[in-house]
Amino acid sequence: MDKLEGLVAEIAAEMAAQTERGKVASYIPQLGKVDPKQFGIAVTLADGRIVCGGDADTRFSIQSISKVFTLTLALGKIGDALWRRVGREPSGNPFNSIVQLEYERGKPRNPFINAGALALADVILSGHRPREALGDILHFIRHVADDDSIAIDQGVARSEQETGFRNAALANYMRACDMLESPVDFVLGVYFHHCAIAMSCRQLAMAGRYLAFSGRQDGRTVLSPERARRINALMLMCGHYDGSGEFAFRVGIPGKSGVGGGILGVVPGRASVCVWSPGIDEQGNSRLGRLALERLTQGMGWSVFGPQG
Amino acid sequence: MDKLEGLVAEIAAEMAAQTERGKVASYIPQLGKVDPKQFGIAVTLADGRIVCGGDADTRFSIQSISKVFTLTLALGKIGDALWRRVGREPSGNPFNSIVQLEYERGKPRNPFINAGALALADVILSGHRPREALGDILHFIRHVADDDSIAIDQGVARSEQETGFRNAALANYMRACDMLESPVDFVLGVYFHHCAIAMSCRQLAMAGRYLAFSGRQDGRTVLSPERARRINALMLMCGHYDGSGEFAFRVGIPGKSGVGGGILGVVPGRASVCVWSPGIDEQGNSRLGRLALERLTQGMGWSVFGPQG
Amino acid sequence: MDKLEGLVAEIAAEMAAQTERGKVASYIPQLGKVDPKQFGIAVTLADGRIVCGGDADTRFSIQSISKVFTLTLALGKIGDALWRRVGREPSGNPFNSIVQLEYERGKPRNPFINAGALALADVILSGHRPREALGDILHFIRHVADDDSIAIDQGVARSEQETGFRNAALANYMRACDMLESPVDFVLGVYFHHCAIAMSCRQLAMAGRYLAFSGRQDGRTVLSPERARRINALMLMCGHYDGSGEFAFRVGIPGKSGVGGGILGVVPGRASVCVWSPGIDEQGNSRLGRLALERLTQGMGWSVFGPQG
Amino acid sequence: MDKLEGLVAEIAAEMAAQTERGKVASYIPQLGKVDPKQFGIAVTLADGRIVCGGDADTRFSIQSISKVFTLTLALGKIGDALWRRVGREPSGNPFNSIVQLEYERGKPRNPFINAGALALADVILSGHRPREALGDILHFIRHVADDDSIAIDQGVARSEQETGFRNAALANYMRACDMLESPVDFVLGVYFHHCAIAMSCRQLAMAGRYLAFSGRQDGRTVLSPERARRINALMLMCGHYDGSGEFAFRVGIPGKSGVGGGILGVVPGRASVCVWSPGIDEQGNSRLGRLALERLTQGMGWSVFGPQG
Repeated sequence: MDKLEGLVAEIAAEMAAQTERGKVASYIPQLGKVDPKQFGIAVTLADGRIVCGGDADTRFSIQSISKVFTLTLALGKIGDALWRRVGREPSGNPFNSIVQLEYERGKPRNPFINAGALALADVILSGHRPREALGDILHFIRHVADDDSIAIDQGVARSEQETGFRNAALANYMRACDMLESPVDFVLGVYFHHCAIAMSCRQLAMAGRYLAFSGRQDGRTVLSPERARRINALMLMCGHYDGSGEFAFRVGIPGKSGVGGGILGVVPGRASVCVWSPGIDEQGNSRLGRLALERLTQGMGWSVFGPQG
Repeated sequence: MDKLEGLVAEIAAEMAAQTERGKVASYIPQLGKVDPKQFGIAVTLADGRIVCGGDADTRFSIQSISKVFTLTLALGKIGDALWRRVGREPSGNPFNSIVQLEYERGKPRNPFINAGALALADVILSGHRPREALGDILHFIRHVADDDSIAIDQGVARSEQETGFRNAALANYMRACDMLESPVDFVLGVYFHHCAIAMSCRQLAMAGRYLAFSGRQDGRTVLSPERARRINALMLMCGHYDGSGEFAFRVGIPGKSGVGGGILGVVPGRASVCVWSPGIDEQGNSRLGRLALERLTQGMGWSVFGPQG
Repeated sequence: MDKLEGLVAEIAAEMAAQTERGKVASYIPQLGKVDPKQFGIAVTLADGRIVCGGDADTRFSIQSISKVFTLTLALGKIGDALWRRVGREPSGNPFNSIVQLEYERGKPRNPFINAGALALADVILSGHRPREALGDILHFIRHVADDDSIAIDQGVARSEQETGFRNAALANYMRACDMLESPVDFVLGVYFHHCAIAMSCRQLAMAGRYLAFSGRQDGRTVLSPERARRINALMLMCGHYDGSGEFAFRVGIPGKSGVGGGILGVVPGRASVCVWSPGIDEQGNSRLGRLALERLTQGMGWSVFGPQG
Repeated sequence: MDKLEGLVAEIAAEMAAQTERGKVASYIPQLGKVDPKQFGIAVTLADGRIVCGGDADTRFSIQSISKVFTLTLALGKIGDALWRRVGREPSGNPFNSIVQLEYERGKPRNPFINAGALALADVILSGHRPREALGDILHFIRHVADDDSIAIDQGVARSEQETGFRNAALANYMRACDMLESPVDFVLGVYFHHCAIAMSCRQLAMAGRYLAFSGRQDGRTVLSPERARRINALMLMCGHYDGSGEFAFRVGIPGKSGVGGGILGVVPGRASVCVWSPGIDEQGNSRLGRLALERLTQGMGWSVFGPQG
């Protein structure tokens, strides 16, 4: 057992013993039913190895982690024209804040706040039907994860659609500012469904390889090294909502969290990591997930901000 | 001539030829007098070498770059208790915004916005006189730069004191919220004077080595590797005000800018860099400075977000 | 011809000669088609007389003036419990601002901003269908105006429904804050339709009598004198969005404007007045309408803030 | 004993029996020492009579009521040019909010929020020394109150100066926006001292006569009827900070409150009233003061929004 294997096993054991786990997100009723005691971790390496621990094969709702993939797709579709639709600065406000949107006249500050992800969905739609846009998204994720079994959890999607008034407010507001092209319902439909994709830690760690390894995966180019670096930069700056500074400070790698309790982390040049534990903190980020990643990056000396010393 | 030397020479030549240089900051009258056509660059490496180009030995007003050093000092003085006085999240608002301060009841969001730096000055004062606090700051900077000739430009300090109403508003507001302990005038005095320190690119690149090399410099420990990583994380997240996302996206390394036109950049484990050109953009960051750093990190593959590909 | 008749004729003539008329509201396409050169005025007095001038019998879209009537109805329905759903303070922000709503967690600051009127529509719905709620509203307005020919302009209603994304954002946001009970679509449907009611100056001046005459009209009690005073107070404080201070300062009586160019004014104990001219200013209030009312209240000594001198 | 005398006696008795009195303002240490059990009322009539009750002759700190007099003076000094320095809209935010000031780039929304009153003080200074400006203010108040014994409470003024960091923040911010001409310290000095003027209910009711009686007092003209009406309009719209809507709704007359617990009320054409009780509510307005005025205007049918019915 090498150092990484030992550390992953140690982290999985530690997290199983934790009692302070945060609260399971309940604003989407379906999410509230998940057992909070679960924890999973998966690490893929440059040499193709994958090291797992805990509930690494249990599927969970990836929620906002999906925004990393829709960002990749939207950039592939319209390139730098995307930045006329959405900004690149951290938001300094909670993730569903409509205030900031008003000050910026409907242009979301970055692709990872909800309003930004609605803009991405609109770009991916570009005149097509929601079904087609979702097909593109699922196809991309299955491709980078190398796993055709990945699918949308329709129960979660429905649950989000029935209770997603805040997102409906954002989408209508953006439409009022002429910042959405497709019908509001189409955009919301695509958004609610891609957030409801279910994946395991193993699948997400596989899917994140192109970000860790200069845009390449299984010997093929998914996107350019420069674009991979830029997505990583956005993940570090904005990937944890109003807890992004905290995550950079403690964990020190690009990461994107979802309220389902998952976090996808990228160690440039070295590893793609996914952790999952359903309890989240006040900023909407997995409590044990962040703790586990902090242990991992410290243990491996993987922080982008300097070696272990 | 090795690759770095060639690249630095190339960048210096390119920047000398640039015509779009931004505007020299004029809100402090003294700063407005600087010749906008200047450009300097200096890179220190782990092996002790230093590579310079352009006006690398011209001294300029370091302005907000000084906050990196006062943060190091304040952390040394009270450790993690500092985070009760100032937050760690990007601000999402222009650098002297008083709005955010009101929402947060006088607690600045991070140490690099002006309000945050006032909190640092207050921590360094801790009951002493401004003269003593400034003595500590100067002593620290001279020590890490290994250069006793570094000094405050008293003309600039006076100019700031006479026109610094916005900072006086911030300090009074924080005092009203019981977030400052020393008299408002003491805090402002320390702040205006440490911003008015004059240094060259070479001196700043030397002074930044402890951040690049795990807290060590000339064989001595300045601070722990963990603390160095954390300061680097804060620089990346918040070092360029409302242009921090843009800087991370384009340049991809921790950096701290000053309205005098300097930027101190940190390439963890590899280099400490300083660039300088007086013209700044709308976010208050050196226009050519950022361009030069973008060329440098791309050319050397120094982005923390992934290798060149 | 008495003083009032002379003054009304004079004002009508003056307004016909005006060249600076503001712009016709265009965000609702149907409204944009109205001829901007029109002007009407009607004044009802305590003795039952009605004095008219200009296009006093042309029907126009009453838009937000309808909120005065839905406020009266909602108060009649649930009394002071209404103030748990909506505040009584001027908003200090443009009329469709979603920012304020977020700070107040979905409770609109007053009944006359759009969010407040959505709350009124929800109260009037109280479990019924939109058709029934609209029936109640129309019935009330016909009753106080003593005119059964008053009706909804279905073309305007449809036009609003197709373009009312900002109001849809507000309604969804309030629903997300649990501040609406009926389905979002019901609330929006009622709101868009009551704003689309078409009335003439004469009809509106008749309909406003209960506010001017202590809640009484044609010898019958519509509401208590205290409630009439309180609605008048709200009209003065909040009836012209972010131009309410200006209207109080210049005109000096309670009034409620609509983007269709109408203003309903109340001179307590003396008169109910309606003016109309389609061109509006930046705050969304009729430009000539305010001017005409200013001339009227100055000429008659009708300001509530003191006699003519 | 006529109706008014009876009502005033009744109100004074009722208020003496009240137990819920609010809290005495404590942010200015000197104010915190006042006995909360006091209550005074004074009413001056058009015929020159004055009807008093309770502690009508006890002097208290008039605080923000002084802004009514500085507004009158500033208007006398520069006329409508004043409105380039300060707006006329209600603020929709707490009375010392710096947020709104930032959005409006240093132009206060109205003359009665603290920032607005600082602008008034600056207009009255207009190049002179604080001592002269304060002389003008005192002279005017003594003149309209017909009482040369009125003076500044130097203890309160000192106490405000030592603790007025929030006002210092406002003044510095306005200076940074070029919205103040005199030195910040001069403006603050004038402001703190005019707020510290001590007067009794009787003196204030006398001083308010020019507002109630079309700008005239003791047979002399203090200002034009139009200007009196406009000041009354501003008092109604903005005189009670974020409780102005509530005051209009319940009391129904123009009024200006001070954190010392006084309220100056104007019944146009009929009476000038002053009530005082030191306990204030969350909006900074006298709790019993408002209650007493509500009783008075209801009992006398004095609401500007309609007769008693």
